[in-house]
Amino acid sequence: MSSQSGHSFRISTFGESHGGAVGVTVDGCPPRIEISEAEIQRDLDRRRPGQSEIVTPRAEEDQCKILSGVFEGKTIGTPIAVVVFNKDARPESYSEMETMFRPSHADYTYQAKYGIRNWQGGGRASARETIGRVAAAAIAKKVLAQFAPALEIVAYVKSVHSLVAEVDPESVKLADVEANIVRCPEAVMAAKMIEFIKQVRSEGDSVGGVIECAIRGVPPGWGEPVFDKLEAELAKAMLSLPATKGFEIGSGFAGTLQKGSEHNDAFEMRGGSVRTRTNRSGGIQGGISNGETIFFRTAFKPTATIFQAQETVNVSGEAAVLRARGRHDPCVLPRAVPMVEAMAALVLCDHALRHRGQCGTV
Amino acid sequence: MSSQSGHSFRISTFGESHGGAVGVTVDGCPPRIEISEAEIQRDLDRRRPGQSEIVTPRAEEDQCKILSGVFEGKTIGTPIAVVVFNKDARPESYSEMETMFRPSHADYTYQAKYGIRNWQGGGRASARETIGRVAAAAIAKKVLAQFAPALEIVAYVKSVHSLVAEVDPESVKLADVEANIVRCPEAVMAAKMIEFIKQVRSEGDSVGGVIECAIRGVPPGWGEPVFDKLEAELAKAMLSLPATKGFEIGSGFAGTLQKGSEHNDAFEMRGGSVRTRTNRSGGIQGGISNGETIFFRTAFKPTATIFQAQETVNVSGEAAVLRARGRHDPCVLPRAVPMVEAMAALVLCDHALRHRGQCGTV
Amino acid sequence: MSSQSGHSFRISTFGESHGGAVGVTVDGCPPRIEISEAEIQRDLDRRRPGQSEIVTPRAEEDQCKILSGVFEGKTIGTPIAVVVFNKDARPESYSEMETMFRPSHADYTYQAKYGIRNWQGGGRASARETIGRVAAAAIAKKVLAQFAPALEIVAYVKSVHSLVAEVDPESVKLADVEANIVRCPEAVMAAKMIEFIKQVRSEGDSVGGVIECAIRGVPPGWGEPVFDKLEAELAKAMLSLPATKGFEIGSGFAGTLQKGSEHNDAFEMRGGSVRTRTNRSGGIQGGISNGETIFFRTAFKPTATIFQAQETVNVSGEAAVLRARGRHDPCVLPRAVPMVEAMAALVLCDHALRHRGQCGTV
Amino acid sequence: MSSQSGHSFRISTFGESHGGAVGVTVDGCPPRIEISEAEIQRDLDRRRPGQSEIVTPRAEEDQCKILSGVFEGKTIGTPIAVVVFNKDARPESYSEMETMFRPSHADYTYQAKYGIRNWQGGGRASARETIGRVAAAAIAKKVLAQFAPALEIVAYVKSVHSLVAEVDPESVKLADVEANIVRCPEAVMAAKMIEFIKQVRSEGDSVGGVIECAIRGVPPGWGEPVFDKLEAELAKAMLSLPATKGFEIGSGFAGTLQKGSEHNDAFEMRGGSVRTRTNRSGGIQGGISNGETIFFRTAFKPTATIFQAQETVNVSGEAAVLRARGRHDPCVLPRAVPMVEAMAALVLCDHALRHRGQCGTV
Repeated sequence: MSSQSGHSFRISTFGESHGGAVGVTVDGCPPRIEISEAEIQRDLDRRRPGQSEIVTPRAEEDQCKILSGVFEGKTIGTPIAVVVFNKDARPESYSEMETMFRPSHADYTYQAKYGIRNWQGGGRASARETIGRVAAAAIAKKVLAQFAPALEIVAYVKSVHSLVAEVDPESVKLADVEANIVRCPEAVMAAKMIEFIKQVRSEGDSVGGVIECAIRGVPPGWGEPVFDKLEAELAKAMLSLPATKGFEIGSGFAGTLQKGSEHNDAFEMRGGSVRTRTNRSGGIQGGISNGETIFFRTAFKPTATIFQAQETVNVSGEAAVLRARGRHDPCVLPRAVPMVEAMAALVLCDHALRHRGQCGTV
Repeated sequence: MSSQSGHSFRISTFGESHGGAVGVTVDGCPPRIEISEAEIQRDLDRRRPGQSEIVTPRAEEDQCKILSGVFEGKTIGTPIAVVVFNKDARPESYSEMETMFRPSHADYTYQAKYGIRNWQGGGRASARETIGRVAAAAIAKKVLAQFAPALEIVAYVKSVHSLVAEVDPESVKLADVEANIVRCPEAVMAAKMIEFIKQVRSEGDSVGGVIECAIRGVPPGWGEPVFDKLEAELAKAMLSLPATKGFEIGSGFAGTLQKGSEHNDAFEMRGGSVRTRTNRSGGIQGGISNGETIFFRTAFKPTATIFQAQETVNVSGEAAVLRARGRHDPCVLPRAVPMVEAMAALVLCDHALRHRGQCGTV
Repeated sequence: MSSQSGHSFRISTFGESHGGAVGVTVDGCPPRIEISEAEIQRDLDRRRPGQSEIVTPRAEEDQCKILSGVFEGKTIGTPIAVVVFNKDARPESYSEMETMFRPSHADYTYQAKYGIRNWQGGGRASARETIGRVAAAAIAKKVLAQFAPALEIVAYVKSVHSLVAEVDPESVKLADVEANIVRCPEAVMAAKMIEFIKQVRSEGDSVGGVIECAIRGVPPGWGEPVFDKLEAELAKAMLSLPATKGFEIGSGFAGTLQKGSEHNDAFEMRGGSVRTRTNRSGGIQGGISNGETIFFRTAFKPTATIFQAQETVNVSGEAAVLRARGRHDPCVLPRAVPMVEAMAALVLCDHALRHRGQCGTV
Repeated sequence: MSSQSGHSFRISTFGESHGGAVGVTVDGCPPRIEISEAEIQRDLDRRRPGQSEIVTPRAEEDQCKILSGVFEGKTIGTPIAVVVFNKDARPESYSEMETMFRPSHADYTYQAKYGIRNWQGGGRASARETIGRVAAAAIAKKVLAQFAPALEIVAYVKSVHSLVAEVDPESVKLADVEANIVRCPEAVMAAKMIEFIKQVRSEGDSVGGVIECAIRGVPPGWGEPVFDKLEAELAKAMLSLPATKGFEIGSGFAGTLQKGSEHNDAFEMRGGSVRTRTNRSGGIQGGISNGETIFFRTAFKPTATIFQAQETVNVSGEAAVLRARGRHDPCVLPRAVPMVEAMAALVLCDHALRHRGQCGTV
């Protein structure tokens, strides 16, 4: 179903922005994995509102609570339910949304599909829904750490509008990403991005950009042929995040400007292993990891909520002008970095378990 | 599982390039849909090798046979199995593949995953696997025609290397796509592309490009929130095709260069319906169709098989030089056009049935 | 995954007996169905401990809370999460379970499978897990009421040990079932059953029996051929309940004592409809409902927890003697009646939606 | 979907009785398992018509062909497609079925569900559909042999009508089952059953009975809690076979006549392992295997096709009299024995892979 993801490490998220709570259940987690609320909280804090001056000031603590599946600090193989209650919900800030469809939001399409919608703060289409994903991914990372101790997932802001950072997926470090509030590991460009976002916000406008993600240390053999190719699953995972418009892996769209003789990754023996000399494949060939660094980019559009007057229609089918209120991110990218990381971890953990099920090893 | 796709209109493909046959079963198809082998064959002929001078000369007729699920010309609600027997298989043309890993192919990763592989002509990773998808999609299109008679899916070559066509997704016609062998509806650019592909082939090289797909006439309300967003499902479907490196919908990566005030699609009433004035969203908002034209682009890398000597390693872990033989496409795009169309039809048909199941209408 | 059930109306339960909470999320529910916590509570109260003198005195209120998916009293098409916090948990009452495997319980097998277990009160194997099922089924019944207003599901105790009631599935009423604490609609036999259960409890022993379930008013056409036959899904649903040992539908095991000429259900026209003269098929033919009353029986073994000394082994592999403490049902049947009903409702609702998805009607 | 089964070892069957072919694809099979058409054929021959004087004389060879997924005698991890073409199809023998609904068959319900049906020989509801299951199970058994070399699955006829054999599930041998044409390992009772079936056939009548299945050598830990309990999956698998009316495991319905103190299986150490002294649980506790012999019984109704005149209605809703022609089994049990065995093997293989995926061992 639509709010479930994963074949063997299967998550189900629930919750609206202004309902009682958001959360997740994780089914199929291996037993005896150490996990605590504090570890989950660490990741939630990275996506939480109010963490810096360039994100929404909504004052949510997003304190998580594990309701099941963990006993004396370890997973026991049964579903792990994690819940975060909504605290700073101010539905009154969104009263105009009851009657108007916000441009480039999901108000109209939810109404068209279901004939009803929770209009408070975006409802199910709110980015608050990703809390469940990030919580589940904190568990997935612990599983991955046991399977492939060298595995590292590092996502970062590659560009904001036309400001593009130079980052090497082979060497970028999480500490450099977390060193600034925009989560771009190139410090000089990060400063420019922060200034740019502040300026855009002061204009009541918003801005988008690209997040790149590098995954190092994935053993060869994870992934599947045909429909569930690892890159296809990553593409789906990324495009399932709010505000995304594109995905590319390895050489991506730019790879179409090379000829085969330029683009192919020659094999060679290195350190006793089959390796590729270049990595235009982005670490995946035929849907299966080849041991090289997996790296991909995801495009995020400018935040749909802006503080300028916008033409729209209301639920009665009349022209209307919307002036947004409430608390919103002028740029989703800083908070989307841990979401990208989370979705990558979920896809990898699921495929690690699938691989072990069919082939007996990880 | 990996060779299955779809939740309600569910397909399972099977078959290797040089095994006995390739095919598909379709489970969950509505009953009483008229379908014939001839209709399926029409679509298979568009993806078949040997159809023009710029594609592989492998001489496969790819004659399909319906084995079940159809009675007196109509679907009966039970699984529809369609099979195409492999005829012009010449495994001897691929004997070097038994011992060598072809660069940027799936030989090494399949070996790493399974510890065994059918090395003849790419095995399961061959584009022959898509025969089953195209056959299933021919059925999906008949279902869609019943649900949304105005629905049209038109895919076409948008670019080959740096040759980019100007095409309007709102008005492009299938007849213009099929008017030339490269399947680019802009005739002048098509001629240039054809010349370019011939030249590349004469150099023993290969080339990639971008396929765009326009879907007109989708009613508002198809798709799902969260993980199975319509764009996420399309992204996965496209990235599951061989040789793909990227996907973008609507404004795509270029959308990151706009501010929210420029990017948002204002709503207006038009013809009695809620419509958007622009369509940067690409016809989908929050994972659900909004009634506008859905359009997206998929990047295909240059064909991995080239006729120049390439450095690689063999299965014993020794350096080796590969000189490809056999019959290959210098550019996959002309034959990938019907594959893109097919995957789009399968995703839409599945979501039409899912929508009807949950919400009662199509 | 193991804690998920249903294809289109899909539920995920979570929770251990003595963890923080038990609950469920329902994904795929049709929108605009009226549902309240009070309606769910009504069904939960029927399965709750402490409701009568012949069930466990554990004092759980089992107050449910809807966390998502409902807005202004109606479903909105997104996942509905319902949670019940564990209140009267006394893990100290179960300390012997930390070291000993209780006979005919799941302690040993959970330990063998996972290498770890929540030994407090049965953990995930506790019947408390069914709270989520009953809550989800309360929603399923509301959906069914909209699809087939005449549909009625009535489960009841058919036998306790050798005390067998005579009940007509065609006419039995819920009010008669609820008229006594053992939930057997035949009053005289119910009184005997109650006396017998009390006596068995006074001996520190336990007892089982059979629950029959009648489903009237199912339209012809629900269900599926082959693997997901309606009777197969019902069998799985019933055998997924704790303490079950058998399932039979229509004529059941006794049907093997008839010849075909005696067993076949002749068709006839009645009230303008195709009807069967007898109903040995139990309302389902070839996996699909035929419009007759669906009825089936489920066998429940005697409660595994008894208050007599039992030989067993401990986790160190040494012989041990177990003397159970805590609060337990001497006979699970009275509280299992709403569980049977719930599982039947979930299976039917799922198949109603599946049928509508594929065939367009309900 | 309805013609698919299994989570990790996933099969999709297709085919009608009188369409072009019946078959199966198996997705998720571990690689490097040796399998040949001859091995599959051996099992198909045990379910094939015409094999003895007490089954239908339909002269089908049921020759199988592997179309994919096997290379040089071994599985390669990709879908294995196996097909059997229908040869001795005589649709003219069934012409009365075009207009009449056969009592206790699926003609009416398929028509009610789909509004169309392949009326020739039962279509999808024919027992010919089980060919795909038996073929897939031949592969599953090879996988199981690698995982648990001591594992044995032995199914046998326990009763025909009121003729009940005494068989010990702990010691029954396949050779004894195959020693006679009714597949009852108790020779004296087998002879009586054969005589009885012949007599019933001579009367134009039919008869049912019970098949028991013993599975020895399953390691502790296979299966899952909650919905996919091993017994629940077996129940569904058995009730998905044509003509089944009931399922019971271990003590089954008779277990309801015992008290807890009589029914509980005391644990003891035996040969260094945790074992149960009795086995009323039937080898499964809480949904998970405990290492004891798994045994269960499935009730098969008398064959619905009889050669006596039967009252029914036709497709126009008029009373009619049906006189069956064609070739039919007077008793399905001898040919259902390999079907029961097959479904058991499929369930176990799926759960072995699921267990390995989540817990890392088999």
